[in-house]
Amino acid sequence: MTAVLRVYLAGPEVFLPDPYAAATAKKALCAEHGFEGVFPLDGDFDARGLEGRAVGSRIAAANEALMRACDLLIANMTPFRGPGMDGGTAYEMGFMRALGRPVFGYTNRPGHFAARTRAWLDAPPRRRQDGGEEDADGLLIEDFGMADNLMMAAAVSASGGVIEEQDGRLDALEGFAACLVQARTVFGRQG
Amino acid sequence: MTAVLRVYLAGPEVFLPDPYAAATAKKALCAEHGFEGVFPLDGDFDARGLEGRAVGSRIAAANEALMRACDLLIANMTPFRGPGMDGGTAYEMGFMRALGRPVFGYTNRPGHFAARTRAWLDAPPRRRQDGGEEDADGLLIEDFGMADNLMMAAAVSASGGVIEEQDGRLDALEGFAACLVQARTVFGRQG
Repeated sequence: MTAVLRVYLAGPEVFLPDPYAAATAKKALCAEHGFEGVFPLDGDFDARGLEGRAVGSRIAAANEALMRACDLLIANMTPFRGPGMDGGTAYEMGFMRALGRPVFGYTNRPGHFAARTRAWLDAPPRRRQDGGEEDADGLLIEDFGMADNLMMAAAVSASGGVIEEQDGRLDALEGFAACLVQARTVFGRQG
Repeated sequence: MTAVLRVYLAGPEVFLPDPYAAATAKKALCAEHGFEGVFPLDGDFDARGLEGRAVGSRIAAANEALMRACDLLIANMTPFRGPGMDGGTAYEMGFMRALGRPVFGYTNRPGHFAARTRAWLDAPPRRRQDGGEEDADGLLIEDFGMADNLMMAAAVSASGGVIEEQDGRLDALEGFAACLVQARTVFGRQG
C-alpha cells in the first residue's frame, strides 16, 4: 500500500483556547510516523448567515464526512467534565467502529473508570447484593477494570490496540504518539 | 413493509438497580407503537469463566451485534454523572448513525448543554475575546443551543427527529414514547 493512511484526530482539543495549535502538533507527529492527520476543524463547511443549532449541525455533518474519509481514528479519552471522556469523542469512536475502521485511544489521566467514578461521587458508594457498587441514586458503578465505559474501551481492544495511559495535561501528546506506533503495527500486520 | 422494525434501546438504564424492569417497560411501549424493542442486555454472550475486561469486551461485542440487527435507535440522553449524557450511549448513537440508520433521542432534564455546563462548573465561566465562554481550565463551553454535544444532537436532527425534553427521573418514559411517534412518522415517510 502506498497511499498515506489518514488518521481522524478525535478529542476535546477542539475546546482548547487554540485548537489549531493542538491540531498542528498532532499532524506533525502523524507525519513523523508516516500518517496524515485530519482534525475535526479541517471540515469544509459554510456557516455564513447561520446561527446556533444550524452551525452545530453543519459542523457535525462536516466531521462525519471527514471520518468517512479517514482510515483510522485516535481518540483523546482523557476525562472531560466528569469521570468519563468527552461524549462527542465517544460518538466518533462508535462511528468509525461501525465503519469497520480501527480506533485507538489514550488518556492523560491513568486509572480505572470505576475508581474515577467513585472519587467523583459526593457520597461513598453502596454495595449491592450481587457484589457490585452503586451511587446514591442507585446507579451502578461500572467496573470492568477498563479506562472508560466498556463500549469505548472494548472498541480499542477489538481494533488491536491498548489504551495508552499517561499522567499529563489534557493536551499532552505522549499517549497520542504511542497510539501512532500501535496503529503502524496493526496496519503493518494487515500488509 | 411488513417486518416489524427493531429499535435499539440505548441509554443508562443498564445501570439501574433493575435494568430488566426498565427493558420490559420500554419493550411494551415499542409493541404498542408497532415496533420491537431490543435492550442491550438481550445480547447472546457467554462470560462463564471470564472476569473484568474480558466480560466487558464480550458485552460490547454483543451490543454491537444487536445494533447491527436493529433498524433504528432511541437514546436516553438524560445527563449522566456530569453535564453530558452517558458516554456509552453516545458511542452507540455514532455507531448506528455510521450504519445509516436513524437515531432518535430524549432527555429527562430539559435545557441547553451550555446552561447545564455553566451550572456544573465550580467557578463562573470566563468570556473569550471571540464572544465564547470557557471554564477555569480554558476549555470552551460548547453553546449551539443544543441539548448535548453537537455530534449527538445533530445526529437526531439529521435523522428527521427532534430531541424530546421532559422533566423527570432518569427512567421516565414520556420522552421515549414521543420518540416512538417520531420514528413512526419518519419510517412512514420512507414508505
